Amino acid sequence: MSNSIKKIGVMTSGGDSPGMNAAIRSVVRTCAYHNVKCVGIYRGYEGVMDGDFKDMDARSVKDIVNKGGTILKSARSKDFRTPEGRKIAHQKLKNAGVDALVVIGGDGSFNGGLIFNQEFDFPVIGIPGTIDNDIFGTSHTLGFDTALNTVVECIDKIRDTASSHNRLFFVEVMGRDVGHIALNAGIGAGAEEILIPEENLGLERLLESLQRSKRSGKSSSIVVVAEGDKIGKNVFELKDYVETNLDEYDVRVSVLGHMQRGGPPSCFDRVLASRMGVKAVESLLEGKSSVMVGLSDGKMILTPLEQAVKGKSQINRELLRVSEIMST
Amino acid sequence: MSNSIKKIGVMTSGGDSPGMNAAIRSVVRTCAYHNVKCVGIYRGYEGVMDGDFKDMDARSVKDIVNKGGTILKSARSKDFRTPEGRKIAHQKLKNAGVDALVVIGGDGSFNGGLIFNQEFDFPVIGIPGTIDNDIFGTSHTLGFDTALNTVVECIDKIRDTASSHNRLFFVEVMGRDVGHIALNAGIGAGAEEILIPEENLGLERLLESLQRSKRSGKSSSIVVVAEGDKIGKNVFELKDYVETNLDEYDVRVSVLGHMQRGGPPSCFDRVLASRMGVKAVESLLEGKSSVMVGLSDGKMILTPLEQAVKGKSQINRELLRVSEIMST
Amino acid sequence: MSNSIKKIGVMTSGGDSPGMNAAIRSVVRTCAYHNVKCVGIYRGYEGVMDGDFKDMDARSVKDIVNKGGTILKSARSKDFRTPEGRKIAHQKLKNAGVDALVVIGGDGSFNGGLIFNQEFDFPVIGIPGTIDNDIFGTSHTLGFDTALNTVVECIDKIRDTASSHNRLFFVEVMGRDVGHIALNAGIGAGAEEILIPEENLGLERLLESLQRSKRSGKSSSIVVVAEGDKIGKNVFELKDYVETNLDEYDVRVSVLGHMQRGGPPSCFDRVLASRMGVKAVESLLEGKSSVMVGLSDGKMILTPLEQAVKGKSQINRELLRVSEIMST
Amino acid sequence: MSNSIKKIGVMTSGGDSPGMNAAIRSVVRTCAYHNVKCVGIYRGYEGVMDGDFKDMDARSVKDIVNKGGTILKSARSKDFRTPEGRKIAHQKLKNAGVDALVVIGGDGSFNGGLIFNQEFDFPVIGIPGTIDNDIFGTSHTLGFDTALNTVVECIDKIRDTASSHNRLFFVEVMGRDVGHIALNAGIGAGAEEILIPEENLGLERLLESLQRSKRSGKSSSIVVVAEGDKIGKNVFELKDYVETNLDEYDVRVSVLGHMQRGGPPSCFDRVLASRMGVKAVESLLEGKSSVMVGLSDGKMILTPLEQAVKGKSQINRELLRVSEIMST
Repeated sequence: MSNSIKKIGVMTSGGDSPGMNAAIRSVVRTCAYHNVKCVGIYRGYEGVMDGDFKDMDARSVKDIVNKGGTILKSARSKDFRTPEGRKIAHQKLKNAGVDALVVIGGDGSFNGGLIFNQEFDFPVIGIPGTIDNDIFGTSHTLGFDTALNTVVECIDKIRDTASSHNRLFFVEVMGRDVGHIALNAGIGAGAEEILIPEENLGLERLLESLQRSKRSGKSSSIVVVAEGDKIGKNVFELKDYVETNLDEYDVRVSVLGHMQRGGPPSCFDRVLASRMGVKAVESLLEGKSSVMVGLSDGKMILTPLEQAVKGKSQINRELLRVSEIMST
Repeated sequence: MSNSIKKIGVMTSGGDSPGMNAAIRSVVRTCAYHNVKCVGIYRGYEGVMDGDFKDMDARSVKDIVNKGGTILKSARSKDFRTPEGRKIAHQKLKNAGVDALVVIGGDGSFNGGLIFNQEFDFPVIGIPGTIDNDIFGTSHTLGFDTALNTVVECIDKIRDTASSHNRLFFVEVMGRDVGHIALNAGIGAGAEEILIPEENLGLERLLESLQRSKRSGKSSSIVVVAEGDKIGKNVFELKDYVETNLDEYDVRVSVLGHMQRGGPPSCFDRVLASRMGVKAVESLLEGKSSVMVGLSDGKMILTPLEQAVKGKSQINRELLRVSEIMST
Repeated sequence: MSNSIKKIGVMTSGGDSPGMNAAIRSVVRTCAYHNVKCVGIYRGYEGVMDGDFKDMDARSVKDIVNKGGTILKSARSKDFRTPEGRKIAHQKLKNAGVDALVVIGGDGSFNGGLIFNQEFDFPVIGIPGTIDNDIFGTSHTLGFDTALNTVVECIDKIRDTASSHNRLFFVEVMGRDVGHIALNAGIGAGAEEILIPEENLGLERLLESLQRSKRSGKSSSIVVVAEGDKIGKNVFELKDYVETNLDEYDVRVSVLGHMQRGGPPSCFDRVLASRMGVKAVESLLEGKSSVMVGLSDGKMILTPLEQAVKGKSQINRELLRVSEIMST
Repeated sequence: MSNSIKKIGVMTSGGDSPGMNAAIRSVVRTCAYHNVKCVGIYRGYEGVMDGDFKDMDARSVKDIVNKGGTILKSARSKDFRTPEGRKIAHQKLKNAGVDALVVIGGDGSFNGGLIFNQEFDFPVIGIPGTIDNDIFGTSHTLGFDTALNTVVECIDKIRDTASSHNRLFFVEVMGRDVGHIALNAGIGAGAEEILIPEENLGLERLLESLQRSKRSGKSSSIVVVAEGDKIGKNVFELKDYVETNLDEYDVRVSVLGHMQRGGPPSCFDRVLASRMGVKAVESLLEGKSSVMVGLSDGKMILTPLEQAVKGKSQINRELLRVSEIMST
């Protein structure tokens, strides 16, 4: 792979997710493998503008494949959204001899990378890292699989106490715009109902479903609710509504919150991160740019960043049906 | 152990905790070992009054030593607080030939057992089961050790994302009246500050501590807050207060909630439950009554239920000092 | 779905794997959803011949979605390999009014089902359940994902002690004929080398690789070895060989063994099991037979059992390359 | 605490155990709290003789409270057993201005420290770090509680597959000279029998017990065997013996091995490590020497190193009885 790229910068941007460290490690080691220099950039685009760079070699990334979070830190940057900010960023990269960027992050981060690429013809490649799995162009984002395991382990624990007391729990999971986590973890945890942004189940049907569930002999129930649930009520409002309308239920609420973003990545996410890092670096070395690495049918693919940013990740409607059947 | 007791009833009462199933198993098997009959009573005192009993033999309790929750379900009972309720309960036990009760639960459950014992001279023995560790007469209650592990695992995950974003997190853990969980899990998770019901740290000192922490180069901070924290503000109010007064901090909140009660018990809780079940049954067979089984200096001891109910479990003040030194 | 099938039998056969219980639950609930009767068959084909059946309704399978192992038990059957055995089996199924079979298991189990189907024109559908992922016609078998997480968690622990002592570990994982577990878990755990049945790395290259690894500054190393590694030496022989030829290494061995088969299934395996159960029952009701349910590109597909049995699952050779680059 | 000690060295020695990092962190932060300098010493006594020291401040030990292994590495040293070796060691410490040593390790490490103290009147204090819990003068060593949880989690997984196939498993756990791990984890995991170095159960009784177990309706069995089991047969010989004499059993073996030493420490071990580090440093500053920090009845105590080395940690015989009753 002969190419003019001599030094690659890697950064994490936006919300962190498990597998980001494994992806950093993979980018760094793939650079080392191809005798290309690599610098880590701290705090995403903020760090680009600050020139907050660190040379990295194969040994710099030891013992991080199994660590949650990101050793390069992450941030959301306002200044990079301005032409002035991006100009400074470009100058800093030039000064440091960085020829290309690998951006590990989500939609917003890719949008920044896309504009930067267009303005300065600077090679940029994206690796989708977010637990929400809401990115077009890949069947799985880094961290999604880990977050699902974290959520089902939490709900398994909640179910222990729910069953012991014949209670109904509303469990809020992450997902403002997409229901991937809620839908998959809901099925995995054996939830009676799953409320997601993509579907308005309706309060009426929820009540009916809970009544049916009670009649069928279930002693406890879990309803998994995505943050951005379409019904438009948060878990506390749902609790009040159900307690008002179904007095046979003792209702509790649990908001799983930020722990969903952390923890050691699952094997799936570690392998995916390793593959994506290799693909990202080798694609840059082959002259590709402004694309995102993704997984499709078990293979590494590339999608133009523009499509990745504009496209919308769809939930698998088969799962809605499976969920309904499972709560028989 | 010759004794007039021929049939023992076992029940779980109040909030459930990990290790209750292991304790049920131990009570049942110890009965079997001594050729005494055993009945499981469902839903605590509610089940006593309903005569909701089930004969149990050694095989009835297989594969539950590692399960959270309680297979006998639990409940809080209003009716048992009335003389009429207790009279019915006594009649149901007599009808079923039950000679003695093992009550696995907390303060409230023991209080009920104590009154019942006094009114009917009915042998009752308590096993302390609650994650809060707030019972006098034992160094550890069943479920406390497991809950600590659950909490530190959650905070480890939260720290991943806190570190990645240089954030401050307020993490609320269980403990309305006592700070055992907050204090131990706070030290275990490396919290910068720990707010508990027993001590009023004061908002001023919290701010100072956070400022010092920032100056000392810490990039993220975790403050663990017991539900019943003495400052009297909940985690959301604390967040607002700190954001108002320390604008360099990006603050988040996480309420761990009911998952703290669930999950497979730790080895410690399984062994403790096994020991307590043996001690409870054998103490009944030796003619003891109205006592609670406890752990003291690694040995099984008995404490009169009256003392267990009236006494107050104290936090270990050495830990306050350790916590302060650790956040240097 | 009008169909002549009125009662479906479900069984688990061969080696157990995490997710089998979730698949049983799904089969039972999908039957209930479609008002078809369902019987659980104990101990695989042994139980068919013994008529060891149990009626199951939606509530029979509560609280098992997250349990490892199989509530229906499993076995390998010699007698079912004989025409006499299969004749008895057929009679028992007829007597019990069972019209169709869902077999959750691996190659051997499907082969039995295929012959049985051919001999008696009895509807049989397979669900691939084995941690080895060695079945043609599905990208993932039930339990594979869970086993990978179990293995990387174990190796993470081993690495803690390996790093502390600058040691080399040979870790044996399951996989007699295929290297899926070794390859994926090896990458996930950051192994320096991965020895699998599909590739003969050669002892020379192993030594070179370990020497290079040492020179590059690595303080510890993990080599993951599939049971059926092509080099043909077991982990103990490999240890001796390396210690003889590379005296700078302090070598240890760990055989992970049967724990790889157990534990609560991952969210991925629970969702996959739920989907496969639905697909299996609905395919039977649609008149399909002698097929295996599988996952391909995220969708449920059917593959003739004959192909599933004859075909060979291939390792992803991209992963070999990723592994090599990662150990830079 | 005015004292002549200005700089303390901390090291880990012998086999590593979970909680060692938390203890290092505590020693370093307690030094910082008292304005005493601290140096980390790599690879135990080897590193002392090599002068392999590193200055450590409060920030050097961030993010390690939850990490297994030891960031200071560990080793066993032959040279330190010679007077010449110790002389060099003393010189290196003097050159670096180190006034006192905190040794985190086991019996062997304390013995070295004791001799060193006697020869050079050099202040040494021990913190008991080993998973075996085989040290006199403390109810718990660092890592013991974590190892118990690791072992029961592994056996829980093995039981999944044992139950599915009606199998008997011999599971070997660590413990060459003491049965603490086997006894506690055996009870915690619901083992049918537990074989330890302190008791010779005898092969006859093992067979009888297994036969009784089978008759009583148990479908699977786990026998936990300490490495140094008194019967004198290893797990593979036990398997052969049982298969020869009880042909109704399908027997398997699992050797848990080194993973028992690794993994994130439990909350208990993190808190214990934090307390022990404080106690060790403050005891040195108070002029104490040649003692070991320990836990007794929930409080920090000191035991002369000489006693710690000579004394023998005893198993709790109550647990033998509990184990017998539990396997009813």
